[in-house]
Amino acid sequence: MDPEEFRRLGHRFVDWVADYRAGLDALPVGATVEPGWVRGQLAADLPERPRPLEELLAEVDRVVVPASAHWQHPGFFGYFPANASLTSLLGDLLSGGLGAQGMLWSTSPACTEVEQVLLDGLAAALGLGKEFTFDGGGGGSIQDSASSAVLVALLAALHRTSDGAWRETGTDGLERVYLTAETHSSLAKAARVAGLGAGAVRVVEPCAGSLAMSPDALAAAMAADVAAGLRPVLVCPTIGTTGTGAVDPVREIAQVAREHGAWVHVDAAWAGVAALCPEFRHLLDGVELVDSFCTDAHKWLLTAFDASMLWVRDGVALPAALSITPEYLRNAASESGEVVDYRDWQVPLGRRFRALKLWTVLHGLGLQGLRAHLRGHVALASELASWVRADPRFTLAVPPSLALVCLRVVGRDGTPDDSADDRATRAVLERVNAAGSALLTHTVVDGRYVIRVAIGSVATRRRHVEALWTALCEAADAVR
Amino acid sequence: MDPEEFRRLGHRFVDWVADYRAGLDALPVGATVEPGWVRGQLAADLPERPRPLEELLAEVDRVVVPASAHWQHPGFFGYFPANASLTSLLGDLLSGGLGAQGMLWSTSPACTEVEQVLLDGLAAALGLGKEFTFDGGGGGSIQDSASSAVLVALLAALHRTSDGAWRETGTDGLERVYLTAETHSSLAKAARVAGLGAGAVRVVEPCAGSLAMSPDALAAAMAADVAAGLRPVLVCPTIGTTGTGAVDPVREIAQVAREHGAWVHVDAAWAGVAALCPEFRHLLDGVELVDSFCTDAHKWLLTAFDASMLWVRDGVALPAALSITPEYLRNAASESGEVVDYRDWQVPLGRRFRALKLWTVLHGLGLQGLRAHLRGHVALASELASWVRADPRFTLAVPPSLALVCLRVVGRDGTPDDSADDRATRAVLERVNAAGSALLTHTVVDGRYVIRVAIGSVATRRRHVEALWTALCEAADAVR
Repeated sequence: MDPEEFRRLGHRFVDWVADYRAGLDALPVGATVEPGWVRGQLAADLPERPRPLEELLAEVDRVVVPASAHWQHPGFFGYFPANASLTSLLGDLLSGGLGAQGMLWSTSPACTEVEQVLLDGLAAALGLGKEFTFDGGGGGSIQDSASSAVLVALLAALHRTSDGAWRETGTDGLERVYLTAETHSSLAKAARVAGLGAGAVRVVEPCAGSLAMSPDALAAAMAADVAAGLRPVLVCPTIGTTGTGAVDPVREIAQVAREHGAWVHVDAAWAGVAALCPEFRHLLDGVELVDSFCTDAHKWLLTAFDASMLWVRDGVALPAALSITPEYLRNAASESGEVVDYRDWQVPLGRRFRALKLWTVLHGLGLQGLRAHLRGHVALASELASWVRADPRFTLAVPPSLALVCLRVVGRDGTPDDSADDRATRAVLERVNAAGSALLTHTVVDGRYVIRVAIGSVATRRRHVEALWTALCEAADAVR
Repeated sequence: MDPEEFRRLGHRFVDWVADYRAGLDALPVGATVEPGWVRGQLAADLPERPRPLEELLAEVDRVVVPASAHWQHPGFFGYFPANASLTSLLGDLLSGGLGAQGMLWSTSPACTEVEQVLLDGLAAALGLGKEFTFDGGGGGSIQDSASSAVLVALLAALHRTSDGAWRETGTDGLERVYLTAETHSSLAKAARVAGLGAGAVRVVEPCAGSLAMSPDALAAAMAADVAAGLRPVLVCPTIGTTGTGAVDPVREIAQVAREHGAWVHVDAAWAGVAALCPEFRHLLDGVELVDSFCTDAHKWLLTAFDASMLWVRDGVALPAALSITPEYLRNAASESGEVVDYRDWQVPLGRRFRALKLWTVLHGLGLQGLRAHLRGHVALASELASWVRADPRFTLAVPPSLALVCLRVVGRDGTPDDSADDRATRAVLERVNAAGSALLTHTVVDGRYVIRVAIGSVATRRRHVEALWTALCEAADAVR
């Protein structure tokens, strides 16, 4: 395809995206197809001859759209939002156009340094502190996901707590990592990937009456492990857990971890970006004491997946843990020590110019626009929570956390019947999802089935939350 | 940004990409900026207020373009190509537009099943055999990179060779993996990430007079390890090494590995796609015996990064190694066992709808178009190699491999003086790169400095290879 053909078709494909987004409100949010339906619709054999790309758009309309859960739909309240703002797509288009590989500074200086500038700027805007910037001896990088971020943090921790022996001799079976039952599964997965096994994972008890990690329980667990000859490697407090948005006490946890030399990685994948707003920055209390901090631009910060941001305080440990240099990657810039080679901050060698989509968002909205985006959703969640509180058919499972509201259905007579209420809650969720104007997902809190309402889709406005509330109430009336 | 604003700006950004690609021939291929130049050009503080996105394009022209190595430039012959065809960008635009998360089948059935259909179709088109398709009990997936592919293959191997104990107890220090000095560094990195350490990596000697792994040496190494109570876990033959395009004898290696129950992962990141052409399929001889096979659509198959394709013969071992299911990801489709949840095929939880860019390429070019793309570059490489052979100023370091030509400069008097010739070869590379119309990278073969010419950029035509040859000859005349 030559550039002129791309110009013509590119306009056509842009129009498809514009039309798709403009028409989302009229589509059911979730997919209703059965397993195998898509495979049955498509030819098994790949085409031998070129076919017009307009036909592909017709195939996408015919097969892909009806078989998609529409994550950008204003009625999408499931999981956490995955903001793929149209603004960010413009930057991603530039990234594809440049087609750069940013594995080394020398393979695209701009790819590396734009990312450094943006991550330094965001560290300041989030209040992370100078130590997390390149100028301060640390630095930030864009990872594909918070899962990968916690994995590389764990690898840096294994390197540091073994004084480098880990690179040569691997894990020794004495390492321990600490989390809670609410910590994202990516840490348990990272521990498995890193060769620690499930046996190395300590589940720390929460503070009484909450879902937040107990610093006292952590201290006891670490002390017992050290006494048993084991080695605390990493603890992962969460700011905004996936289930309910719970916040672990980072400051106290970091103080405990420091006594044992363990790495502290903060997983704030969803909630961390809220610290752009001064009124939410208290969530990050104690973050100046930790070793690494992750928050996703691709969840709630309007940047299309993948763009998970990881900052480290020690700009040496992470690349030291991951660096391997074969001959064909040697170059003068790397050997000068004056540049960052981001391949050493991640597992994959190759990397896209992901900073461009983040840059486009920051440029096109400004910090003011981002704050308005975040505040709008928090206000809607607060309003929804007030409706729940005032309604005898529902109860809040936990206090709302930023833009996440967790609720349960309450039986008609008001007397608690846990299993009946759980069945009703589940039935309400299924009814709302089946109706198609909203998509909800669930979790379990203290053994109880809970509906999560994660407000944060790019297109969600007050009327969509009102419609959801109406749907919830109608479903509750039908099933109670 | 509303859809209408996106329509307007999207056209503008498409035009920027079209203009950039159309103008590449006139730009120097490599970047000449000093470390820190980009950072110095950009404001350290993020903008508070929204700014017009047209201004961002001006910033990209002012700062990014001059600080980029232009990987899509027709004179880019470095590393391996990173085809970001304009066709593939169209599919990527749809992916961003949909903004789907494909972690589970249920979070976007289309995202999962389109990928299954395409990977099954490509398995057939590459001649991989039915066992590597979903219908045959195996299956394929798109990974971000061949680095991640070899990592997850290693994790599946650790799971299988430990009968599942690895998930619980981690690595045990007895695992061994096998590679050659020419194997991509990603396997050594994967071994480190997986907690095996450098000590677990066995470097197998090559066959006499070649760079290919010796099956006899492998057999001896594995037998010695087993006798010492160690456990062969994985061997990684390469089809088309990064340095010189060498091909390991997969069939014999697989036969050796099978005796010890080791997993065989074929890294054919660059060269594997050539098997779409029947005349190159002999490169894959023996692949029906291996456990996993990786080739990158984002290197030489016209699909923008990231799109590394990994097939496994055993569709159970890999997800069994990687699966962890917290409550908030539980769903009826997963529990039915009728669907593939691709999160269990990779380290990250989240995933983009990357199949769309691959689909666009397959649809827009057809297999015929892809074969023509590959054959054209091989023919150019063959022609370049013939010029090298016929010219006393140069010699081929190794026979050309598909579209990769490795050459050295020969001293004026023809008598071998290794160190002088190496200096001259290096000087030629530096001169050609400094001139700006081509970009070359190097490797070292048997201790000798070697220029690699990797033909395969989307826009490379015969005239660009001719210009490169002229530049090489002029540089050789200047430095000899």
